[in-house]
Amino acid sequence: MRKVYLDNAATTPLLPEVRESMLPFLDELSGNPSSLHDWGDSAREAVAEARARVARLIGAGAEEIIFTSCGTESNNLAVKGLALARQNKGRHLVASAIEHFSVLHSARTLEKMGFELSLVPVDSSGMVDPDDVRQSLRPDTVLVSIMHGSNEVGTVQPIKEIARITREHKVPLHTDAVATAGNIPVDVGELGMDALSLAGNQFYGPQGAAALWVRPGVRLIPQFDGGVQEGGRRSGTENVAAIVGLGKAAELASDNMTVRMGHLSRLRDRLLDELPRRIDHTVVTGDTTSRLPGNASFCIEFIEGESILMMLNSKGVAASSGSACTSRALKASHVLIAMGITHELAQGSIVFSLGVDNSPEDVGYVLEVLPPIVDRLRQMSPLYARFIKGSKGGKNARLQ
Amino acid sequence: MRKVYLDNAATTPLLPEVRESMLPFLDELSGNPSSLHDWGDSAREAVAEARARVARLIGAGAEEIIFTSCGTESNNLAVKGLALARQNKGRHLVASAIEHFSVLHSARTLEKMGFELSLVPVDSSGMVDPDDVRQSLRPDTVLVSIMHGSNEVGTVQPIKEIARITREHKVPLHTDAVATAGNIPVDVGELGMDALSLAGNQFYGPQGAAALWVRPGVRLIPQFDGGVQEGGRRSGTENVAAIVGLGKAAELASDNMTVRMGHLSRLRDRLLDELPRRIDHTVVTGDTTSRLPGNASFCIEFIEGESILMMLNSKGVAASSGSACTSRALKASHVLIAMGITHELAQGSIVFSLGVDNSPEDVGYVLEVLPPIVDRLRQMSPLYARFIKGSKGGKNARLQ
Repeated sequence: MRKVYLDNAATTPLLPEVRESMLPFLDELSGNPSSLHDWGDSAREAVAEARARVARLIGAGAEEIIFTSCGTESNNLAVKGLALARQNKGRHLVASAIEHFSVLHSARTLEKMGFELSLVPVDSSGMVDPDDVRQSLRPDTVLVSIMHGSNEVGTVQPIKEIARITREHKVPLHTDAVATAGNIPVDVGELGMDALSLAGNQFYGPQGAAALWVRPGVRLIPQFDGGVQEGGRRSGTENVAAIVGLGKAAELASDNMTVRMGHLSRLRDRLLDELPRRIDHTVVTGDTTSRLPGNASFCIEFIEGESILMMLNSKGVAASSGSACTSRALKASHVLIAMGITHELAQGSIVFSLGVDNSPEDVGYVLEVLPPIVDRLRQMSPLYARFIKGSKGGKNARLQ
Repeated sequence: MRKVYLDNAATTPLLPEVRESMLPFLDELSGNPSSLHDWGDSAREAVAEARARVARLIGAGAEEIIFTSCGTESNNLAVKGLALARQNKGRHLVASAIEHFSVLHSARTLEKMGFELSLVPVDSSGMVDPDDVRQSLRPDTVLVSIMHGSNEVGTVQPIKEIARITREHKVPLHTDAVATAGNIPVDVGELGMDALSLAGNQFYGPQGAAALWVRPGVRLIPQFDGGVQEGGRRSGTENVAAIVGLGKAAELASDNMTVRMGHLSRLRDRLLDELPRRIDHTVVTGDTTSRLPGNASFCIEFIEGESILMMLNSKGVAASSGSACTSRALKASHVLIAMGITHELAQGSIVFSLGVDNSPEDVGYVLEVLPPIVDRLRQMSPLYARFIKGSKGGKNARLQ
């Protein structure tokens, strides 16, 4: 059976070059970068090279990169570390309603400590209006956190406009760029945010290595206390092999971004165009123009996303419904709900996230196997039966 | 030139079997364990198997293991997570004076939030007296954190006796077992603590995978907010390859512990016996009986540990002076100072930490190259010149 992995938003495969770059640090002894001997020196030099590569990917200075273990850690460090460093100035936070839970729940934890959180809404395409960010600012606002791109609906936010507003008001802006960094151009100088999270396993690097970039001069309270690593801002023995892999992935992303984006967006557009034509009562979610090149997301009416995933899996296809982090919770996505999609329709969420390994044949295969799956599931769906009955009775029983 | 790695306390080399276990999760696609498809299933099953292996290493239940990214994270999660979960009962903490900075500095961060920290002293061998722990307990004590073994001086604490006291007083006991788990028998049932930190890169597993064990029923406030991983207690996409490696390392440690301990303690005892005989004015640090099998630590008078390290490195030998985490800070070790060693003598700290790959020839080589290094450094030492002058004048000018 054909195996088609279309869940790159959950985790991307390791590119062979990335794997090769990591093996010396697994084959031989990978020293501790803090040690004062040759083994330590090799590890330290490898980490320094990776730091420079990650910095180059986002147009930053190497010393501004803090290595962490995952995107969730980067987001926790950013939200808590930046807010707590400023709590003497105020305790008001702003975030969009569609942030990843590592941002939203970090803000919720701060709420328990006396902070207040204002959520900025999104429109039906999942887009934040920069004016809404401006409206939400108060004299005691100490942090704004708006994601760059959504892994779930693909929408890429107008971060440059938002950053212009936060800069005017001298409020630091954190951007969760876990879905975008390494996949579309991200230049911290041009975009103008003050802190940015990225993760290796979103652009063909390893799990276990991620980063937080913080603009020089912006204060951050470390969340791990202990040693002296990462300039004291993130203690703990470095995962040298994974950091090296992240660096290599960053270099490959810098070098190949345009080609990759062209490849992915061609595959994506075919899915976005053809799937709603082959399956009725199917809507594309997210913005159709300002969109991640690898994201093709839909809501299919009258059925549940999880059932589609199971049946796609039995055909060798991996996809997701909402984000991987919440997929086992089987709840309607907070992102889709914030976009004004009904709970019923949100249940039918399906996200195909394409990767550089995917081919036109992969997309053709999905376009071929998915319609009969949907047909079969709808035959078993009480919602669909009700709809058909309603239609026959001449009423418009469509859910949305 | 012979290469002799005697800095296993900083990070151990990967065993070939551990590396082999990890490669499939780097060679093929390592899925996201949260995903609902075959790739996710494979990753999830691999993580579950690793969890069972780590649990077996310490006599715990698999569901009680929380995977983290490093020992520092485990210690931060334990100290902050356990203390914050109990702050309505009191805000008093107890730790030994020789804890790793990831424990001590976490406690210092809690102090800034209104907690109080009492430090339990150690004797000249680095040993905590359980009675001192008892004396330090107050009605508002909500956490005791005492390490199991010191990577720096080798002393293994009477955790069982300490746990008996904390249990009597119904105060949770966290034990930093980063230096001991995987190296000497650790059974949480027998020892009786309530939480325990361990790290893969201390027993031939990879960097980037560690764990916190928490006794069922003991509350813990998560330090990463976000997804649903690790039962909600540690959000973030799992580093599947590293976790698998940690599991394999745990299995190998369980199976080979007695043989390894015999091998290491023979090498250790030869260093502990012969080095002070070959180099005058050299003292063994740490307890000589309750001691990590791989630790041979000394203070060599009249010279600086860092100078010894540089010259040993030029002879192909890797060792450390104090802990790796602080080695670049060039400060006198807080562990040695707490043991009553003078600042002058503490400067001459040198730690050899043996690993399973070391041979009797490695130890013979160190015993051969170190004495001339010390001689040469002492020729350049003003302290030594003063001492010699004092001796010639008939006075006892020895520093300690």
